[in-house]
Amino acid sequence: MTSPGSTPGTATRSEHDLLGDRDVPADAYYGIQTLRAQENFHITDLPLSHFPRLIEALAQVKRATARANHGLGALDDERAAAIEQACTEIVGGELHEHFVVDMIQGGAGTSTNMNANEVIANRGLEILGRQKGEYEHLHPNNHVNLAQSTNDVYPTSLRLGILLTFPALVESMDHLITTLRAKGAEYSRVLKMGRTQMQDAVPMTVGQEFNAWATTIEEDVVRLTRTAAAFQEINLGATAIGTGITTDPRYAQLATQELSDLTGIDFVVSADLVEATSDTGAFVTFSGILRRIAVKISKICNDLRLLSSGPRAGFHEINLPAVQPGSSIMPGKVNPVIPEVVNQVAFEVIGNDLTVAFAAEGGQLQLNAFEPVIAFNILESTRIMTRAMNTLADRCIAGITLNEDTLEDNLRRSIGVVTALVPVIGYAAATDVASTALETGRPVADLVLERGLLDESRLKSLLSPESMTSPHRATPTGTMPDLSNEWLDSGEITRLPLEPDTEG
Amino acid sequence: MTSPGSTPGTATRSEHDLLGDRDVPADAYYGIQTLRAQENFHITDLPLSHFPRLIEALAQVKRATARANHGLGALDDERAAAIEQACTEIVGGELHEHFVVDMIQGGAGTSTNMNANEVIANRGLEILGRQKGEYEHLHPNNHVNLAQSTNDVYPTSLRLGILLTFPALVESMDHLITTLRAKGAEYSRVLKMGRTQMQDAVPMTVGQEFNAWATTIEEDVVRLTRTAAAFQEINLGATAIGTGITTDPRYAQLATQELSDLTGIDFVVSADLVEATSDTGAFVTFSGILRRIAVKISKICNDLRLLSSGPRAGFHEINLPAVQPGSSIMPGKVNPVIPEVVNQVAFEVIGNDLTVAFAAEGGQLQLNAFEPVIAFNILESTRIMTRAMNTLADRCIAGITLNEDTLEDNLRRSIGVVTALVPVIGYAAATDVASTALETGRPVADLVLERGLLDESRLKSLLSPESMTSPHRATPTGTMPDLSNEWLDSGEITRLPLEPDTEG
Amino acid sequence: MTSPGSTPGTATRSEHDLLGDRDVPADAYYGIQTLRAQENFHITDLPLSHFPRLIEALAQVKRATARANHGLGALDDERAAAIEQACTEIVGGELHEHFVVDMIQGGAGTSTNMNANEVIANRGLEILGRQKGEYEHLHPNNHVNLAQSTNDVYPTSLRLGILLTFPALVESMDHLITTLRAKGAEYSRVLKMGRTQMQDAVPMTVGQEFNAWATTIEEDVVRLTRTAAAFQEINLGATAIGTGITTDPRYAQLATQELSDLTGIDFVVSADLVEATSDTGAFVTFSGILRRIAVKISKICNDLRLLSSGPRAGFHEINLPAVQPGSSIMPGKVNPVIPEVVNQVAFEVIGNDLTVAFAAEGGQLQLNAFEPVIAFNILESTRIMTRAMNTLADRCIAGITLNEDTLEDNLRRSIGVVTALVPVIGYAAATDVASTALETGRPVADLVLERGLLDESRLKSLLSPESMTSPHRATPTGTMPDLSNEWLDSGEITRLPLEPDTEG
Amino acid sequence: MTSPGSTPGTATRSEHDLLGDRDVPADAYYGIQTLRAQENFHITDLPLSHFPRLIEALAQVKRATARANHGLGALDDERAAAIEQACTEIVGGELHEHFVVDMIQGGAGTSTNMNANEVIANRGLEILGRQKGEYEHLHPNNHVNLAQSTNDVYPTSLRLGILLTFPALVESMDHLITTLRAKGAEYSRVLKMGRTQMQDAVPMTVGQEFNAWATTIEEDVVRLTRTAAAFQEINLGATAIGTGITTDPRYAQLATQELSDLTGIDFVVSADLVEATSDTGAFVTFSGILRRIAVKISKICNDLRLLSSGPRAGFHEINLPAVQPGSSIMPGKVNPVIPEVVNQVAFEVIGNDLTVAFAAEGGQLQLNAFEPVIAFNILESTRIMTRAMNTLADRCIAGITLNEDTLEDNLRRSIGVVTALVPVIGYAAATDVASTALETGRPVADLVLERGLLDESRLKSLLSPESMTSPHRATPTGTMPDLSNEWLDSGEITRLPLEPDTEG
Repeated sequence: MTSPGSTPGTATRSEHDLLGDRDVPADAYYGIQTLRAQENFHITDLPLSHFPRLIEALAQVKRATARANHGLGALDDERAAAIEQACTEIVGGELHEHFVVDMIQGGAGTSTNMNANEVIANRGLEILGRQKGEYEHLHPNNHVNLAQSTNDVYPTSLRLGILLTFPALVESMDHLITTLRAKGAEYSRVLKMGRTQMQDAVPMTVGQEFNAWATTIEEDVVRLTRTAAAFQEINLGATAIGTGITTDPRYAQLATQELSDLTGIDFVVSADLVEATSDTGAFVTFSGILRRIAVKISKICNDLRLLSSGPRAGFHEINLPAVQPGSSIMPGKVNPVIPEVVNQVAFEVIGNDLTVAFAAEGGQLQLNAFEPVIAFNILESTRIMTRAMNTLADRCIAGITLNEDTLEDNLRRSIGVVTALVPVIGYAAATDVASTALETGRPVADLVLERGLLDESRLKSLLSPESMTSPHRATPTGTMPDLSNEWLDSGEITRLPLEPDTEG
Repeated sequence: MTSPGSTPGTATRSEHDLLGDRDVPADAYYGIQTLRAQENFHITDLPLSHFPRLIEALAQVKRATARANHGLGALDDERAAAIEQACTEIVGGELHEHFVVDMIQGGAGTSTNMNANEVIANRGLEILGRQKGEYEHLHPNNHVNLAQSTNDVYPTSLRLGILLTFPALVESMDHLITTLRAKGAEYSRVLKMGRTQMQDAVPMTVGQEFNAWATTIEEDVVRLTRTAAAFQEINLGATAIGTGITTDPRYAQLATQELSDLTGIDFVVSADLVEATSDTGAFVTFSGILRRIAVKISKICNDLRLLSSGPRAGFHEINLPAVQPGSSIMPGKVNPVIPEVVNQVAFEVIGNDLTVAFAAEGGQLQLNAFEPVIAFNILESTRIMTRAMNTLADRCIAGITLNEDTLEDNLRRSIGVVTALVPVIGYAAATDVASTALETGRPVADLVLERGLLDESRLKSLLSPESMTSPHRATPTGTMPDLSNEWLDSGEITRLPLEPDTEG
Repeated sequence: MTSPGSTPGTATRSEHDLLGDRDVPADAYYGIQTLRAQENFHITDLPLSHFPRLIEALAQVKRATARANHGLGALDDERAAAIEQACTEIVGGELHEHFVVDMIQGGAGTSTNMNANEVIANRGLEILGRQKGEYEHLHPNNHVNLAQSTNDVYPTSLRLGILLTFPALVESMDHLITTLRAKGAEYSRVLKMGRTQMQDAVPMTVGQEFNAWATTIEEDVVRLTRTAAAFQEINLGATAIGTGITTDPRYAQLATQELSDLTGIDFVVSADLVEATSDTGAFVTFSGILRRIAVKISKICNDLRLLSSGPRAGFHEINLPAVQPGSSIMPGKVNPVIPEVVNQVAFEVIGNDLTVAFAAEGGQLQLNAFEPVIAFNILESTRIMTRAMNTLADRCIAGITLNEDTLEDNLRRSIGVVTALVPVIGYAAATDVASTALETGRPVADLVLERGLLDESRLKSLLSPESMTSPHRATPTGTMPDLSNEWLDSGEITRLPLEPDTEG
Repeated sequence: MTSPGSTPGTATRSEHDLLGDRDVPADAYYGIQTLRAQENFHITDLPLSHFPRLIEALAQVKRATARANHGLGALDDERAAAIEQACTEIVGGELHEHFVVDMIQGGAGTSTNMNANEVIANRGLEILGRQKGEYEHLHPNNHVNLAQSTNDVYPTSLRLGILLTFPALVESMDHLITTLRAKGAEYSRVLKMGRTQMQDAVPMTVGQEFNAWATTIEEDVVRLTRTAAAFQEINLGATAIGTGITTDPRYAQLATQELSDLTGIDFVVSADLVEATSDTGAFVTFSGILRRIAVKISKICNDLRLLSSGPRAGFHEINLPAVQPGSSIMPGKVNPVIPEVVNQVAFEVIGNDLTVAFAAEGGQLQLNAFEPVIAFNILESTRIMTRAMNTLADRCIAGITLNEDTLEDNLRRSIGVVTALVPVIGYAAATDVASTALETGRPVADLVLERGLLDESRLKSLLSPESMTSPHRATPTGTMPDLSNEWLDSGEITRLPLEPDTEG
């Protein structure tokens, strides 16, 4: 206890635990175990409060267990109400600065759990009209942690924390998709050369390229959301090793139901709580999906940097918006800094994922002691990827413009367009045209016309966007037979790229 | 062409391609492009034939496209029949030794595709009564590869190849699960100390431990199977870059239907073929699930090695069957070689997965040129993991025996059992017992009896398997109130570990 | 500029760059480019100032280049002095809070370089008696960045930054080594069972085990230090792409010399500046050594957790000091939280290293745009590993105690000691003793005496620490022939474990 | 024993070990323990003989230990001679097909060691005029493995195996360097635009680019060779756990000396054999250097694919030699298949390296049981990287040609060249020229001449290769002052890119 007249900030109260007595700052809501953990784990400078959603999740879990304990008659009305109110305040954003333990910590999350227990107990004591530290009235372990172990509370909180965190990532991905689709629509009829293996291939539309990026992220949204659903299976009630030792047979189900009611998320109790208590499979899988997203977004950024390379000695197909000056030494240079930073976020996420894999593999027997580093990396990856997605959409994609001259020029000079003529002029003639075009540098179209292989209108038709960028029935006579209606009308055809070929 | 009298094995035929003429062994079913690829890619010593299911998949895809082309009138009856028969033979296991290109190859799989095209064409020529190499009658490109590009055929074949391969992995996992469950049942009532963070925690049954391993693999089976379903979405008909250039509008749907009919797998055409042609997301995710399996099986093997450590200076809880002598220098030593080899397979799979991630990230624009190394690693990981699972089940798990004396002794000497008494004798008395037990080395039970805290029958009941290894309502009076029937009977409680506590 | 009467903190000055005008907080030492970068890169919440040694390095490089430019007559006395003083202040720890750009940033470090240029210019302007922002008198680009490009300044600063940072890691490793060696000396004569593949092997001393850990870290110190020496090769003077465009032919050498003088580190100019400007090999290698350290320290922590497992159902050879209570639900439980947190730091470092590898692989043509994420990960890994090493030494190793009873009992009951008798009693008799010992549980020594294979004094001698824990010439007659002195005395024998066998 | 009249190939001999009797094929040089290992480890289909240098290393180690044992009087003349001869034959390439155990195996290499022991014993028996299997005359354990344990023999053999293997990699790297340097010399005066962050930067020579690639590989050769030197430290004589139990005090030194004599490699005994026996640091570091090489060669291949992109819609600076036709569907397309396959080898090596890291981290107490998977991955990475380097040199680099028109056109149209004029025409005028050039698409040179900023000869001089691609003192007057001779002549300047500027 602080003596009268002690300097503000240096006042302390004494607390006791298994290892003895320690002075805790009088105004701290955390207690002796948190203090020890702070001293033991000085690693990242990033405390629990770096991830507010995790704090929120801890408070919700404590609220749910308090309700369950109260419902089972194990916690009296007064204490239950105090815990409830303290948790409600924390969910509302209060007291986060008292969650001070380093995100990377030993003890399998015990220090995180005890930090929550102590803050809730001390705030609850105030609510009860007591002083902080008077644990005989509301105890971090006996009451706040009642019928709980770190080994069920921590993974459950982490699962909820991720479920509270990842919707922001989905939102940012949706935002990016919308932004890409808008560009896809804007450029749906602008032709360009497609490339495979970095070599000119055949034509496509710029819209198809943007839409493909959108589609690939869309698939990730589906995959991410489905994978996150695995976090709805929790092990609350497992206590120490999954056997539920010291819990009432009704507790696991009741606490889980309370948590579902509080959060609006439909949680279920694991069918095998022993397995659930040591298993980190859902984290590895979720992290793997974050890696999948990273791999894809990195590929997209690589493409963006490639397509905007130049302005003179590069692809120069698209222009990324200038968001800051490039080099001081080279006047006027503007660099693709937004894709670059997103690439780096992707690399970071991939590295974080490896950390998760190592930590998961290191689990032993009835518990994985390394969940804290799993928690840190998944939450961090989710956060930085969310920011990266929004940054990419708003500071890059939305402002992209085309260099239509380049696109058209590439197409006109390209030899690849000859592929569209093969079904009409034949492979041999097409090969001959291709060779001459490559040697002389002359456009394919010019050669075809010059050689009288096709008349201008027919050629134009074959090189139309529709012909070159979607399946197209071509015949030597130039007339297109009726499409087999049983196919088109039967509904069996699940997909036609672009709009239907109305010329058919 | 081979001249009369040439030595067997040195006879050749001459073939021609874009780069000129080359002599191909007369008895080779492959042709000039395969020959060049063999020379270009001398990397792993593992040819395509190392993975028979991939060869089978290539043949099925070629068969399906031949049927579609025939159905659309683009391939005549005779050629279609020849291709069909050649492919059927290959599916039946013939001609695999002519798939000679290295699994790791440049060209985005073009050499794999051409190897298939050439073998099918040359075998088809024989069926048509022609000589190998008389491509004017049946051409690798014009006929076998009709309306196809490597860029749709190769990923489709790889997807099918994985779908044909992974059931063996699932089967091996099921076998392991069954083996673990049998042990779980056998030991369902044998008590042991559970451990968290390598420290004695609270009791559980040996059966719970084996069942938890089974459960965790079961979850992987579900996850793996679901993830593999993504391979049923294919891009057949996409041709070069997804625009379907040169294909009939009905082709993609028709070829996909034929492939479904041939394989009994329900394939669908991707909704966005441009995206589908460059995307490797499904491979990354599948590889990530293989990694998840690896992480888990490695953890299980770590546990097995830990629990069987000793015989004197270790845990010595279980005995792994001796499958080979251990050290020559130390007579009688037997080592856990089966878990060790499975651990190493797991590490291999984890490394392979990183290769997949790098390759996926490296894709550019309309194609990922690095699919061959993705194919190699996924197929290899699947294969070695299948073997590892079977090895673990048959050569290790099935033969495990218990050291019941050790288990019982550990439990009897353990302080952790005091946790089960806390609700009855109270936290203070329990702590005092625990401290004395730690200092003196005396069993908790002895101390409790000596201090008259409980009578022998009550103590025995509390330390029964049911009390200690499942939720249990304990009261100070020693009488257990009726369980709230609305809970037990309502069906709301989805899970109770072990059998219901009938003694309650 | 702020108008009179404006609210403190909202006062601004206007600055201009390629993209237009922006208001910068009036009291900010950074300028418009830093402002834009702050807005563009909102990723980690960790600004440059998170790594003070990197700020210090930037200031030293700017100081060195200013001196070189002054020496070559390109910078006048007044401006050179202002830059010098501003840099000196920053090296002294001032103004760090103005280095606000996110550590993960696009632009290949341009924003870091410009942040430094702007802070130095504005502080220099004050020194010159000017207002912040009056760049015509001292310009971030024209003067502070004179003859420099981000592409030489940033990698050079990062190299210096690492060279300033890693000695703390070495110091922490040395501290850990010393702590381990002290334990090694303390326990140099305490026997224990050595284990291979988790099975009892042959005896060793506890001291040998601690010393082996010390040795393995010692090797890392050597390796780390040697690898860091690669950072002394820098590319100052390379400017944009390594050709040194716009620099005086004497500049590179002069600036490098100045940097050496300022820092006391012997820097050299790369022989191939074009290569040096895009190459990240030294970073990959250094990161790889950090990974090597992580792998080893993780193995040590795994061993510590294993050896301290128990207290009843585990190895229970050593006791780790209790630094915080373990589980709330299990009274008296103490967990190995310090090794656990160090394991997790190791996993983090391994993940960071993968990020470095991805970033390095992604470099293109004349520059690697991803050096910022390389910088972040190497500096972060170095920092957290430093803390982990100190934590492990002080909060764990130093307080370890032994359970000598367990050690002795394990040894006494062990069958492995029979190996030491093989050369004397023969392989057949030894095998027979081993089998009986395993079956009956009786100690090897008892059986040997009982069977009259050796007398007690001879047995004791053979089972002495010297006999069992170092090479030892044993003969059937029990007499030890003289050691061949030409070997022992010649100095050719570079090593004998433990002290020489004085009995020999 | 085979009975008379048994079918060839089914004849067997019976052998015995700890676990009982088994029939071994009569013509097999391996024995019962190898047989069991074959059955236990069915994983990769790659037997030990896949790596002949590892077999050679095993034989050399066995030869060295036999010599040491003979020298110490522990092995008689006849047996020593038989072992010596058998080993000599194996070193000469004989009997490799009898090394049949899977490369990935449990038992920490025991099966590899026993495979060697058995083959050598059986061949030795034949040399002694005995039958295979008559081990009483020459025993795999008692004689061939005398004074050895797998735990010293296996790591020593692996170290020697790598030392025998990696020179081929160095040779292939040297070959690549030579090939790159030849191109560097050939194009030493061809100008091109350098690029940073995929944007046009400033000019350089094509030679500088090729030379930079050569330099970066050169650095790897140095690094690789230095790292491999760590393998010269071995733990021969450590036996089971490093204590040298059962060995003569002179043995470790003597066996090591014999191995040095046999191989011409200067081996030394580890100073701390306990540490050396469990430590895998040298493998992790070597694998990390292989990864470094992979990262760099992948970057080079990325550059090659980028610079050869096109031919119309790409960079089109260089042409890679056509080594096989590209797409069947796109006539005339040629793809960069060689860089592509090398990229994939690089990804494979990076994945292998992760496997090594996992295996290394998993070591426990006095041994790492996972060395076999480390061995496999390092040897495999070394082999495929060797092949990739040679492939890249011979099938790609050597045949590269330039598109000089493109290079010149890019340069002429580039705005970046204006940077070279800044010191002469000033920053303001340069910026104005740059802006106009970007807007109008007109060449910088034209604008400069048009505006009368420089006369043609002065402009030409400034845009000369020497001016733009090396440090260059430019002055407004156009006269170049004498270079400060104390710098140039003092020898202090360690480097000047390209030849000295003789025009200066």
